Amino acid sequence: MADRWTLDRVRELDERDPLAEVRRRFELPHGVCYLDGNSLGALASGVAQRMRAVVEDEWGVDLARSWSHGTWMDAPVRVGDRIARLIGAHDGEVLVADTTSIALAKLVGAALAARPGRRVVVSTTDNFPSDLYAATAVAARAGAVLRVVDRHELAPALGDDVALVCLTHVDFRTGALHSIPEVTRAAHEAGALMLWDLCHSAGALPVGCEEHGVDLAVGCTYKYLNGGPGAPSFLYVRRSLQDRLENPLPGWLGHEAPFGFEPEYRPATGIRRFLTSTPPVLQLAALDAALDAFEGVEIDDVRAKSSALGQLFIELVDDAGVPGLEVASPREAGARGSQVSLRHARAADVVAGAADRGVVGDLRPPDICRFGLAAPYLSFEDVFRAAATVVEVAQAL
Amino acid sequence: MADRWTLDRVRELDERDPLAEVRRRFELPHGVCYLDGNSLGALASGVAQRMRAVVEDEWGVDLARSWSHGTWMDAPVRVGDRIARLIGAHDGEVLVADTTSIALAKLVGAALAARPGRRVVVSTTDNFPSDLYAATAVAARAGAVLRVVDRHELAPALGDDVALVCLTHVDFRTGALHSIPEVTRAAHEAGALMLWDLCHSAGALPVGCEEHGVDLAVGCTYKYLNGGPGAPSFLYVRRSLQDRLENPLPGWLGHEAPFGFEPEYRPATGIRRFLTSTPPVLQLAALDAALDAFEGVEIDDVRAKSSALGQLFIELVDDAGVPGLEVASPREAGARGSQVSLRHARAADVVAGAADRGVVGDLRPPDICRFGLAAPYLSFEDVFRAAATVVEVAQAL
Repeated sequence: MADRWTLDRVRELDERDPLAEVRRRFELPHGVCYLDGNSLGALASGVAQRMRAVVEDEWGVDLARSWSHGTWMDAPVRVGDRIARLIGAHDGEVLVADTTSIALAKLVGAALAARPGRRVVVSTTDNFPSDLYAATAVAARAGAVLRVVDRHELAPALGDDVALVCLTHVDFRTGALHSIPEVTRAAHEAGALMLWDLCHSAGALPVGCEEHGVDLAVGCTYKYLNGGPGAPSFLYVRRSLQDRLENPLPGWLGHEAPFGFEPEYRPATGIRRFLTSTPPVLQLAALDAALDAFEGVEIDDVRAKSSALGQLFIELVDDAGVPGLEVASPREAGARGSQVSLRHARAADVVAGAADRGVVGDLRPPDICRFGLAAPYLSFEDVFRAAATVVEVAQAL
Repeated sequence: MADRWTLDRVRELDERDPLAEVRRRFELPHGVCYLDGNSLGALASGVAQRMRAVVEDEWGVDLARSWSHGTWMDAPVRVGDRIARLIGAHDGEVLVADTTSIALAKLVGAALAARPGRRVVVSTTDNFPSDLYAATAVAARAGAVLRVVDRHELAPALGDDVALVCLTHVDFRTGALHSIPEVTRAAHEAGALMLWDLCHSAGALPVGCEEHGVDLAVGCTYKYLNGGPGAPSFLYVRRSLQDRLENPLPGWLGHEAPFGFEPEYRPATGIRRFLTSTPPVLQLAALDAALDAFEGVEIDDVRAKSSALGQLFIELVDDAGVPGLEVASPREAGARGSQVSLRHARAADVVAGAADRGVVGDLRPPDICRFGLAAPYLSFEDVFRAAATVVEVAQAL
């Protein structure tokens, strides 16, 4: 097949890229094409300095006084507000704390308690397994069940027994997207609440929480938000729902008066009631500094570029026509998240061989090679080189 | 009253202190007597360098590959083993993850599920309120109740309906100790499991988890373990119980095969089943480096020194005889944790006035001035100066 792409044509795309200068906001290692930002996002430029300040000055010198006069105590809400903008939510609707599975347990539990007449949570077989583990356990304790169906059988599963629909926006294996507007509308028509796991969405594509009437969401911050290894998760609760839901894992920081040390729990008003315990200050400082890389960046531009990067990657793989190497992601950009997955019987060898040549993706066993396309720090030339390398490795197997 | 103590006599104690050189393992700010280590422990010397390495090299250069070849994935168990030694537990019995209230929710939930015929959790009115909030919510969902009694009414509360006794070893206000051997034995005689909150114990006094047959424990790592602001909590499960308990907040990292992405949850064997989600790598790195300060240090020596520091503080306050300033902690060292609390009607002014003179304690409203005695980095001279300052401030009110 004729080559549609040359290095010169690809470099033209980089020259016209409105996000080209954003790449300079990251510390990328030399000689590496890093297409694993959907596993762990790259290090943004201000993070190291911010970590030195929080460790050596705020902790080392000001010590516990930093809790009362510094940026520590309000970090979960303040950093949450910065994420809100990126997922189409408002200030006071997002909180950063805990981990994704704990955040999910909180919101599934809250939703089931708010819908006592409905004892079913619906999810899909291809959801991230940890979400299914968490939801199954929470549902069982609430006398409810998790109904797990194929994604094509979602509509008939939405009966009037459904309290909550709980899905991951972007399939972690293939990158296939659910339609947030369509599924959220269907959930609401069935009288259910809608919870989206945005782990592979936040920082990569527009979500439109308000626009589409999303009720609840969770997501991690170490992928496309670049918050660092083990960065805390976020949770989103639509404002009009906040005071109607209760945090099933209460703790002192979700109390209306945390330092009153009252014997009885009184939930805070607003999003703070979903806090439980002391925030992970060091992780929050890293995430906060990392979010500076998104200043002045519109998520629609990120999405447009990552779609184009994905299209380029797919066309290069198609054009090479390597036997046994197939595109596993949707070919239509609108149906695909910010990644391209390839299927190969020796996927582990493809991923390892590419990594040996400086192209980092990851493996999702048994047969998926996954390449994340973080538009803020990847160029079209990176993707051109990455696809060429993957093709070469697969050809040589 | 005659002064029992002079600066010379106090300096003699420092000269004979077997832990005197441990102080050099910490970066203490100049001109500050820091008696708030029971709120946030001081910065240990190796932490800043370790944080630079984990951020700038492991994250910045090795990126996601650090998950497979580095120290990240096993950190919850590896760092847990380091804490196990300090609380009298064994390798493989302690895990570091989440926050104290989440850890407590896990273990209370697990205990109630393991004792289906008993629907009561017992605690005391003076327990840390967050523990009561968490236990109340978990108990309610399990069809159980939290029975909260005065600490002197504990024995008669231990009926055959009790699944779990859940107490904090050291009272956060006064420093009063429960007897771990006595209460644990009483819980076991009633057929209940025993859970200790060790937030104010770990790193400060011996706990003897194995020696006293403790079943379950949780604790924070940012107080006497010096893990840093928002450091994750630890949880302890006695080995013989581990495979009989289920984690009520399951997630992928507690799965027997986390990277198998199986649709059904299969709990890992051993302590790992109490993991839920991705560990907070940056916080764990700080805690790990902080624990180097305990290398070669015996917890019995820490306890002996902090008891002596407390005795000195109490005698200095007693000798000064300032009207309205009273010792609120037990006077007997064996009944007191690693703190001295003073009661004063204008406690906020005492704490603020002392802080203005470089003596940092903290306030527990309405009337408690709390002074933590972290033996690894405090000298007898520090405590002498601190007590003199507090006395001066209170006298001038």
